[in-house]
Amino acid sequence: MHQRAILPESITRLLKSPTDLIAAIAQDHVTGEVLMLAWMNQEALALTIATGQATYWSRSRNEIWVKGATSGHTQKVMNISLDCDGDALILTVIQEGAACHTGNRTCFHQSIPMVTL
Amino acid sequence: MHQRAILPESITRLLKSPTDLIAAIAQDHVTGEVLMLAWMNQEALALTIATGQATYWSRSRNEIWVKGATSGHTQKVMNISLDCDGDALILTVIQEGAACHTGNRTCFHQSIPMVTL
Repeated sequence: MHQRAILPESITRLLKSPTDLIAAIAQDHVTGEVLMLAWMNQEALALTIATGQATYWSRSRNEIWVKGATSGHTQKVMNISLDCDGDALILTVIQEGAACHTGNRTCFHQSIPMVTL
Repeated sequence: MHQRAILPESITRLLKSPTDLIAAIAQDHVTGEVLMLAWMNQEALALTIATGQATYWSRSRNEIWVKGATSGHTQKVMNISLDCDGDALILTVIQEGAACHTGNRTCFHQSIPMVTL
């Protein structure tokens, strides 16, 4: 059972929707590399803010997910920024080990070739 | 009327779903700054690949949206990377002017304070 947290009203009112999931981009705090995209509900965001550990909402398991709780590949959150329409966040993080479950440093490890016409 | 494009089968098969929208993170190619998060359908991705200009799907207008077509704030796409589960992309871009409709360089211009317990 994870701990509980409630998002402060000062932050809630910045969000586009009280119920929609928020897209959360994890970016390496030092190198700027984008590591992964995951999702948060309000409680996941509240827990992230309160604990400093990146905490997401798993859409496949329908539960709060403390990143690295199983793998040890935690993310210490240094900064959080919200976008202009209040439905996406950037977390800059200190990543322990690999961000991706495949063992790659980043989830974005598949290059898509460009075709210049 | 925008031009038409079809995504190559070699790319289609990397995607999680043929119909779900794909989250597309635009990142400054030079500085690594994350500029915005938008959405693509397969045609938007095909157009982006074919033209080298970031092209999204507008969820509010339900139409293909060539970034900067109205504002002039275009994004020349340098690289595209797909994530491990095939439903999110990073575009590294050369951003013309501001990425955000508010005039800010990045859409992620609202800092969320952290509370360390």
